[in-house]
Amino acid sequence: MKDDRYEIRFGGSGGQGIILAAVILAEAAGVYEGYYACQTQSYGPEARGGRSKAEVVISRNEIDYPKVIQMDLFLAMNQAALDAYFFDFKPNGLLVVDSTFVKQLPSSRAISIPFTRIARDDIGKELVANIVALGAVGLLSRKFSSDNLEKAVIARVPQQFRDINVQALHAGMKAASEVDLAYLPRSVTTDEEKEV
Amino acid sequence: MKDDRYEIRFGGSGGQGIILAAVILAEAAGVYEGYYACQTQSYGPEARGGRSKAEVVISRNEIDYPKVIQMDLFLAMNQAALDAYFFDFKPNGLLVVDSTFVKQLPSSRAISIPFTRIARDDIGKELVANIVALGAVGLLSRKFSSDNLEKAVIARVPQQFRDINVQALHAGMKAASEVDLAYLPRSVTTDEEKEV
Repeated sequence: MKDDRYEIRFGGSGGQGIILAAVILAEAAGVYEGYYACQTQSYGPEARGGRSKAEVVISRNEIDYPKVIQMDLFLAMNQAALDAYFFDFKPNGLLVVDSTFVKQLPSSRAISIPFTRIARDDIGKELVANIVALGAVGLLSRKFSSDNLEKAVIARVPQQFRDINVQALHAGMKAASEVDLAYLPRSVTTDEEKEV
Repeated sequence: MKDDRYEIRFGGSGGQGIILAAVILAEAAGVYEGYYACQTQSYGPEARGGRSKAEVVISRNEIDYPKVIQMDLFLAMNQAALDAYFFDFKPNGLLVVDSTFVKQLPSSRAISIPFTRIARDDIGKELVANIVALGAVGLLSRKFSSDNLEKAVIARVPQQFRDINVQALHAGMKAASEVDLAYLPRSVTTDEEKEV
């Protein structure tokens, strides 16, 4: 059976809400899209540093190993998390960064969107930058319908913040929809060279 | 090196907040107690049923496999989750149930505490039953100081609900402190029989 794992890592600082974003994405996948999905956090001796990392693995088949083996998509909400967790990146993986805080990109397959600036200036609440990012990542991964992303957000955020989070999600999807992935450079693997 | 994995599963219905409880427990372990810790959620085709499951693995050593292999402790917040996820239970594992909703116990090594009743009647907010349970599980596992559990709760819940969640945590620890684990029956493994 073809291994169709799609592997996403989220990196950010403690207060940036990446665990919540990862939980919502996994629920969108597992509960609403009908995938198998695993969502993990791991903490080691470095956990006091204030960086945090969360992962989501999605598949049409049962998932034997629930952590990321090679990233298809890496969302980095700041430079420190990007520098710390940019490993196991697939040759044609996609790097998505919050350009409010990330200035140096270790890959040319990168999409820069100012998630925190959008949350602050367009939504009026910096705290929902994680949900803006979730909207963008959900769309860029091409694994989710916007309806199912919205259902997962609504099921998980406190009711009094429901509207602002839905607004944030849509702002992220809109920002991502303006990106043309076809313009990103591609790694040429050996197999593809042979076919030329 | 001795394998000192301590493995906890949380089971409940969608609205019972077990993922949040598991995230907080993993952060108490990884960020405040200095363990390695992994926290996972998995979703399969059954995810629409409204049951949910979350797991935490704690170790002094690096964790190679982040999901539960055999449970040291299983927290079941209702009967459906208990029935669905009571597998891979260690012979001398500990079953902790919310006796508000669980009536039938598949093990005699069980502690029954009415988490939801305590949350509703003593704290005045049924929604914090997950944090009452977290306090009890944290204490019963013997892996956490109450200070570090409290720090992890405060770091993770919204500020306007901070006091009520801390109160809930302490109510759970108090209920658990009234349990004498020494009175639980123990499985006698073959190795122990030989020593008699």
